[in-house]
Amino acid sequence: MIVFAKDSTAQSWVEDAAGSEFPIQNLPFGVFEHAGRKRAGAAIGGYVLDLAALEEAGIFNEHLRSAERLFATDTLNRYLASGREMWSAVRRRVISLLAAENVALADGTMVEADRRLRDDKSLREAALVSREEVRMHLPCEIGNFVDFYSSKEHASNVGAMFRDPQSPLLPNWVHLPIGYNGRSSSIVVSGTDVRRPCGQTKADDADAPTFGPTRLLDFELETGFITGPGNALGSPIPAGEAPQHIFGMVLVNDWSARDIQKWEYVPLGPFLGKSFTTSISPWVVTLDALAPFRVPGPKQDPPVLPYLQARGDWGLDIQLEVLLQSGEATQPHCLARTNLKHMYWSIVQQLAHVTSNGTNVLPGDLYASGTVSGPTPDSYGSMLELAWRGTKPITLPDGQQRKFIADGDTVIMRGRCEAEGFCVGFGEVRGKVLPART
Amino acid sequence: MIVFAKDSTAQSWVEDAAGSEFPIQNLPFGVFEHAGRKRAGAAIGGYVLDLAALEEAGIFNEHLRSAERLFATDTLNRYLASGREMWSAVRRRVISLLAAENVALADGTMVEADRRLRDDKSLREAALVSREEVRMHLPCEIGNFVDFYSSKEHASNVGAMFRDPQSPLLPNWVHLPIGYNGRSSSIVVSGTDVRRPCGQTKADDADAPTFGPTRLLDFELETGFITGPGNALGSPIPAGEAPQHIFGMVLVNDWSARDIQKWEYVPLGPFLGKSFTTSISPWVVTLDALAPFRVPGPKQDPPVLPYLQARGDWGLDIQLEVLLQSGEATQPHCLARTNLKHMYWSIVQQLAHVTSNGTNVLPGDLYASGTVSGPTPDSYGSMLELAWRGTKPITLPDGQQRKFIADGDTVIMRGRCEAEGFCVGFGEVRGKVLPART
Repeated sequence: MIVFAKDSTAQSWVEDAAGSEFPIQNLPFGVFEHAGRKRAGAAIGGYVLDLAALEEAGIFNEHLRSAERLFATDTLNRYLASGREMWSAVRRRVISLLAAENVALADGTMVEADRRLRDDKSLREAALVSREEVRMHLPCEIGNFVDFYSSKEHASNVGAMFRDPQSPLLPNWVHLPIGYNGRSSSIVVSGTDVRRPCGQTKADDADAPTFGPTRLLDFELETGFITGPGNALGSPIPAGEAPQHIFGMVLVNDWSARDIQKWEYVPLGPFLGKSFTTSISPWVVTLDALAPFRVPGPKQDPPVLPYLQARGDWGLDIQLEVLLQSGEATQPHCLARTNLKHMYWSIVQQLAHVTSNGTNVLPGDLYASGTVSGPTPDSYGSMLELAWRGTKPITLPDGQQRKFIADGDTVIMRGRCEAEGFCVGFGEVRGKVLPART
Repeated sequence: MIVFAKDSTAQSWVEDAAGSEFPIQNLPFGVFEHAGRKRAGAAIGGYVLDLAALEEAGIFNEHLRSAERLFATDTLNRYLASGREMWSAVRRRVISLLAAENVALADGTMVEADRRLRDDKSLREAALVSREEVRMHLPCEIGNFVDFYSSKEHASNVGAMFRDPQSPLLPNWVHLPIGYNGRSSSIVVSGTDVRRPCGQTKADDADAPTFGPTRLLDFELETGFITGPGNALGSPIPAGEAPQHIFGMVLVNDWSARDIQKWEYVPLGPFLGKSFTTSISPWVVTLDALAPFRVPGPKQDPPVLPYLQARGDWGLDIQLEVLLQSGEATQPHCLARTNLKHMYWSIVQQLAHVTSNGTNVLPGDLYASGTVSGPTPDSYGSMLELAWRGTKPITLPDGQQRKFIADGDTVIMRGRCEAEGFCVGFGEVRGKVLPART
């Protein structure tokens, strides 16, 4: 892996990269559209580095055996399939092209600065596109989509609300990362409007259900990891090998219709209460960029079974926040701040668990964390918890109140990792709620 | 739609088609491999009609505007996306090429026999391949995979076993077709071996779970429908329009590990107990071919909400059977026979429900029925029910007993619709169980 030390002072010659959430230490990957064409890029400051343009210019070929046609496509799937050796080679090469000077990595090795892009005006103009001029797309075609339930605080809050405040966690929760399969076709990129769904709901005191717009539309603040290259059917990925198959992470808003979910979910789990839309951020922050922010996770007690044991620290110190901007407001209001480091189950445990029965992971699968809730009421990752099932409405700066999400509201989620001299940011995932179609 | 009457006497000039499960009235679509190349074909008797060869020979172009390159691909997805008008045109054209004489359809119109394929020896030899010489593949790339729970008998059996024999159905079950998202990557075609999965299980009297091979491996006898072209996100498919988006049906064996499922499934539903493998039959029997076998479904009481109401009969008279052949046996033993006509929720209700929240259907999605169990104990679609949770072991002809599925067992499912003069068959889905990897 190509990892910067947490006290790295490396800088890019791209003017506004230092101090931005996309400095040279980050270099997230995504798919952008510019001049009518989709292709793969890496974010650097206020720019997108057009990886397809570099590929076409032969910039990768000198150093990489077969990097051709990995980036001049409208998804990252082929790149995701190429594996960690290729990811490392490309990351090293991109760093060399963007570095102001030679760069020291965390393991003491150096990446030599290559002036070619900086000094070639026509190449630079072709390969650096202002982020204001591009439209971002989903980074990959998502095959499998799994949503976990890995925050102990979230599972406890929900268990306390709907089951038993004295014993909110079910017995299986501490032994395995509970999860379920989601719907991949309705995953959309940040900025896509979200239509309030209709569905069947039944009031507790009603004899029969009715059909109509959800009254309890909610968000769930989550992260998710994107995979490649994956395993053959029948051959599990051990926890120790999981990092070979995790390319990077995105922010996830797992939109939820609580009333639809409540009526449908027994006994086979959430279905239409979730499947109408899931929003993700466009930039995939690589596991390499996140490595400096690995921290010890919560102590797992009781101890987990051997197949879920992983070496090293797999907690991730990623600051997360969720904001809401009503249709009338001029700026968003922060609803909650939390941190991914609170998560009980780690991403390597999640991947080891999901493949423990031999199922196959594809390049471009999305494995979401489940709602990230912290220990305090201002760190809960859903309206369900923040307004505690509607019993503690939230007051917005203009006096409006919210128990759940209203039409016209925009929900914004952000994530960032803070080091001494730099920050690794996720950008944001945002979605505006449109009224139900009638 | 291009539908034969149930008393159709139409025949193909392909010698063994009449009387087979793939007569001219059927013409299921699939993807076959021959001479190292995958392409789309239609089954006729003991042959595959190579649709790519016909496409290359220009046989479709005379009649269809843009049928080019629909079949010379390794999945049916592009054809599925082309929609019902194209499906009808292709079916009509294929019938004309294979018919021994002019053919009467159910609506009284005729399809004129075209001698071109029959009389052109070189085209015929190129386009008709013995089914014994081909290897079948998955018919399409499956995006979304949903598994319903639509048999009242099955849901009642499971409810009686695990919850309350007096009131086995949960309140929501009669109001909506309960379902959940499955895992699409581990769907395999008939003939693929199935590795016994490992997983976490906990005995009722144990303090903690253990990890190891499932002890309760089961099958579920199901059918499933395959979609195209689908809807835009946010625009539900009404029940009345569902047939425009249902191309055809396959047999599905939803392999299940009951002990893994039992420990993991509360509260988010089945996950690793199902996701290790799902097997499907290779030939997609079209909705056109199934139309003569539409019958009234069970009376739905209480009445369903308007969005689930569909005109016409959507029960499907499809005879299903499941057989088991142990590793030592020379022939399979029939475990159960049932019929899809017992299903409480129809395929058009399932599609209307799944999209009622606006989620988008893709060409190539698979929507499975859930276990098809009939009203009598010899018509149950899973070992769980047939051996009633292990309390009534099944004795095989050689004296062996089974509560669940043993290593070396092959499970075979078959389906067919019987008319007066012909039968529309599904072929089979089979899978042999290999011992767990240790």
